[in-house]
Amino acid sequence: MTQHIDLVLERTLDAPVDLVWAAYTDPEHLKQWFAPKPYQITECELDLRPGGIFRIRMVGPDGFDTGHGGAGCVLEVEQGKKLTWTSALGPGYRPAEMGEGCESFPMTAIVTFEDAGNGRTAYRAVALHKDAKDKETHEKMGFHDGWGTVAGQLEEFAKSLKVSA
Amino acid sequence: MTQHIDLVLERTLDAPVDLVWAAYTDPEHLKQWFAPKPYQITECELDLRPGGIFRIRMVGPDGFDTGHGGAGCVLEVEQGKKLTWTSALGPGYRPAEMGEGCESFPMTAIVTFEDAGNGRTAYRAVALHKDAKDKETHEKMGFHDGWGTVAGQLEEFAKSLKVSA
Repeated sequence: MTQHIDLVLERTLDAPVDLVWAAYTDPEHLKQWFAPKPYQITECELDLRPGGIFRIRMVGPDGFDTGHGGAGCVLEVEQGKKLTWTSALGPGYRPAEMGEGCESFPMTAIVTFEDAGNGRTAYRAVALHKDAKDKETHEKMGFHDGWGTVAGQLEEFAKSLKVSA
Repeated sequence: MTQHIDLVLERTLDAPVDLVWAAYTDPEHLKQWFAPKPYQITECELDLRPGGIFRIRMVGPDGFDTGHGGAGCVLEVEQGKKLTWTSALGPGYRPAEMGEGCESFPMTAIVTFEDAGNGRTAYRAVALHKDAKDKETHEKMGFHDGWGTVAGQLEEFAKSLKVSA
């Protein structure tokens, strides 16, 4: 299904799939790792059902702040296995306003989680775009570095859940 | 859930809910009534599952032709009760290109069907827009006339299914 206008990040994470899933889908957990440091997620709403809201507020150095707007929409939830969400729609499937910067193009993310044995997780995140231009914009914004960095942060955070569990 | 930026068409159709549902969701049936005559639907693909394609080709007087592109995406299917689809996404949830005219703004349609007794169906179609401007554009394009006309055509076609059943 992947096309040349998609971007793909694949990692084997050294944490069990149930903890990686929990780290991704609990809004309080997600805040801990979803932004590449020193950026931070200060607000997160994630209603884990088709049509549910997925909204984050990211703040960073030099006054960077995505603000309160820009809510996306959850499309598919397969417990422990798959989460699909899009910025093209908001909660309740309403078409979303496209903003500036990070939100200037619509994107759908398909994130899958699979047991990779020995307490590890095969993590795969695919970003679907409407055309090559949006893919390039996303690539130049630092898709590989950004999504790679936060995959590492996700791994570390999911591991810490293991210790505290 | 309806907001001031939505457009709503409600009709009680003189045909049973199972036939109205069949008329709406079978691509060959849909072609018979979905375009306000003398416009015609010459092609229809409708894959009735979340993430499935919803694509029509409409042709009309003076060379009007929506062509092959512009596929939308099915979001929700409740057998016999509810169909939600959007033009903001294409099949597989990929963000869609917004084209010209009818396809110049993203829209989500939530269509519900309910038994209204005596073999009649309460039919409700809500068009969700991202803002007031898109709502107005849609209204000026003739939402009420257009969706009203095809609701009548849907009723007639669903009735004809009864006779032939």
